[in-house]
Amino acid sequence: MPNHTETTIESELIYSGKIVELRKDTVELSDGTFSTRELVLHAPAVVVLPLLNENEVILVSQYRKPLEKTLLEIPAGLINPNEDPLNAAKRELREETGYTSLDWECLGEYYPTPGFCNEIYHVYLAKNLISGVQDLDEDERISVEVFSVDKLKRYIKNNWIKDAKTVLAFYLSLDKIK
Amino acid sequence: MPNHTETTIESELIYSGKIVELRKDTVELSDGTFSTRELVLHAPAVVVLPLLNENEVILVSQYRKPLEKTLLEIPAGLINPNEDPLNAAKRELREETGYTSLDWECLGEYYPTPGFCNEIYHVYLAKNLISGVQDLDEDERISVEVFSVDKLKRYIKNNWIKDAKTVLAFYLSLDKIK
Repeated sequence: MPNHTETTIESELIYSGKIVELRKDTVELSDGTFSTRELVLHAPAVVVLPLLNENEVILVSQYRKPLEKTLLEIPAGLINPNEDPLNAAKRELREETGYTSLDWECLGEYYPTPGFCNEIYHVYLAKNLISGVQDLDEDERISVEVFSVDKLKRYIKNNWIKDAKTVLAFYLSLDKIK
Repeated sequence: MPNHTETTIESELIYSGKIVELRKDTVELSDGTFSTRELVLHAPAVVVLPLLNENEVILVSQYRKPLEKTLLEIPAGLINPNEDPLNAAKRELREETGYTSLDWECLGEYYPTPGFCNEIYHVYLAKNLISGVQDLDEDERISVEVFSVDKLKRYIKNNWIKDAKTVLAFYLSLDKIK
């Protein structure tokens, strides 16, 4: 692949918050011309497809303020500083749903929006879940939903699930679930 | 699904740029408590899986400043104000790769990062491509790559392609390509 590296000439921090940092960089393109890039910086994340048993999955529903609507998704969350991705996945599954598992598999890592944001998420499949108690962050309101695998397939086929990571994790797991 | 609607109490516009707008909202949760939400506002987008012929796909490689690396992706871009998503898909494919097509199919719409951003992208499959001339934005540096479908499958299976929309669009098209 050709080299189109963009060299940072100047970097302006516009905002540093709880979840995102916003930066505006002036860059030199590979042919010596200049442009600006708006960059959203975001912690790495984990995404978990939780297979309760051979026939059922666990989904979560939560209100997503940027969309002003409630979405059905699989559990996900940010990796804490210095936290191992697998440990973050185990923690987020337990906190958001109460479930734990001894059977974990990593299905890869993906950039959801490389055009403007540096987020990467690690995708996991968790099988044979053991139930427990939800432990949500103070401002999280998450409802747990049990779906049959067939129902999830129907929801995905009809585009009733519109969360990209949920659909991607489902396809990545296809040869591992019934 | 339970109703966890978050009501905006106050909204602060922090930044309004070329690609993103950043807002910080104070919200009232469904149980009457308060929190803040950082919201990145982003135009809707289109994503195109371009099938050159039965055996080959077109990919694009470009430097992604937020990651400081070059990524292999399928063509994608923002929908202009008042532009129809299909027209945006046709325009982005032509601008980024030079190719056009008379054979388009919509494969659904997805939210890549609903936790902090309102972006939605519409996924299209374009078949039987007709070659033409690239027409890039002033600050775009995009190289076109022809991959066999088998090579794309291998790259996806090995997680060598890490762009989520590319892998999602591939799976959504699976029963439509060889």
